[in-house]
Amino acid sequence: MVEKGNSRSRGSYRTAGVPVSTLLTFFAHLLFIAITTLLLVWLLQFRDGLSFTSTKLFNLHPFFMIIGFVLISGEAIMAFTTIPAKRRTRKYFHMFLHSIGLGSSIVGLFAIFKFQHDTGKSNLLTLHSWIGISTVSLYALLYIVSLLVFFFPGAQNWRRARLAPWHVLYGIAVFFMGIVSAETGLIQKFIALGLQKGQEALIVNFTGLLLLLFGISIGLVVLLPVSYY
Amino acid sequence: MVEKGNSRSRGSYRTAGVPVSTLLTFFAHLLFIAITTLLLVWLLQFRDGLSFTSTKLFNLHPFFMIIGFVLISGEAIMAFTTIPAKRRTRKYFHMFLHSIGLGSSIVGLFAIFKFQHDTGKSNLLTLHSWIGISTVSLYALLYIVSLLVFFFPGAQNWRRARLAPWHVLYGIAVFFMGIVSAETGLIQKFIALGLQKGQEALIVNFTGLLLLLFGISIGLVVLLPVSYY
Repeated sequence: MVEKGNSRSRGSYRTAGVPVSTLLTFFAHLLFIAITTLLLVWLLQFRDGLSFTSTKLFNLHPFFMIIGFVLISGEAIMAFTTIPAKRRTRKYFHMFLHSIGLGSSIVGLFAIFKFQHDTGKSNLLTLHSWIGISTVSLYALLYIVSLLVFFFPGAQNWRRARLAPWHVLYGIAVFFMGIVSAETGLIQKFIALGLQKGQEALIVNFTGLLLLLFGISIGLVVLLPVSYY
Repeated sequence: MVEKGNSRSRGSYRTAGVPVSTLLTFFAHLLFIAITTLLLVWLLQFRDGLSFTSTKLFNLHPFFMIIGFVLISGEAIMAFTTIPAKRRTRKYFHMFLHSIGLGSSIVGLFAIFKFQHDTGKSNLLTLHSWIGISTVSLYALLYIVSLLVFFFPGAQNWRRARLAPWHVLYGIAVFFMGIVSAETGLIQKFIALGLQKGQEALIVNFTGLLLLLFGISIGLVVLLPVSYY
């Protein structure tokens, strides 16, 4: 298996001497900050804030799903190839961030199911909910299988090497589904709130737009070194 | 540059002797047929049908965008690596399908702008419209630049070889944006129509779900051979 992280500078993608993946990683971190800020402004200033009490319970759903799940799992994906550390360190940090991602996705699901239950609404009617629940299920499955194969008890080396590329591709596909879930969720809320023009509409739309750029950046960070070494 | 199409069987991804990319291509074609069928049932049976007259004008938007743009450009992407023909033939067919994709996206945009104008609605308020118009613009840009670089007048060979991987990555990113545009559009219409349960709701949701699988299949078809030869 190709050792990705340390051979990064050999990639054919360079702009003025700097590997493009370094620029993309930096850009993705900036997007992480921007999206988190926008989302917090939206939830705290326009949507009553965050709490486990029933009126504000809904707000925990986008909070945990977008920041805790999508953004942090994106950082987890990048961490494996971009952190300047030994393979073992990178691997553990990758798992640590994905653990936060998985935990957040479960809290996020709990929040929305409890909110729907408390307000007497039906669950799982929209495309957002279908894609969302598939994403979290596939993510949890990947997490568990990966833990067994790559950590405890851990498979034989040749088997791990053989499974690694599948892990990457499956992971990218699930991350891609996470982005689609978030985008469909944002627009669903946008229409349900009857937003048109104005500050809140712009905040929601810009969150979605930056999230799309975040997804593309992460995809490129992962695909660049794997594809062209 | 690696000659992808003919060395496909050397890929490390095989299931019972059949390259996984062959199975995925077959699966993607099936999804093409299923999505087209669902969408036509939706537009013809539930939504008054297709026509350039004002009440049915809206329906041309999903028709041209999903079938003409997203599905056909997906086929165009696969065509380059999967058609059992000479490189030159694959390249021309790739361009031919993308020409249909570009034409469709322009007609699809025209349909929705004219519909909004005729019904006195504002344009470009939602995340769907923002992502959608960005997608079509970036797609048109890629089409024109690719035509100049790879067809007429055509750049020098070493320059084409150098630009080819960028063309692939940029193309995947735009295709990914096309999928997100379609998903956000479907859910926006779903909420605006007030759909809940029932046949029409299921048809719209399944169209979205299959479209997501189509996107993932195409992504894998392109990424598998490039990544692991």
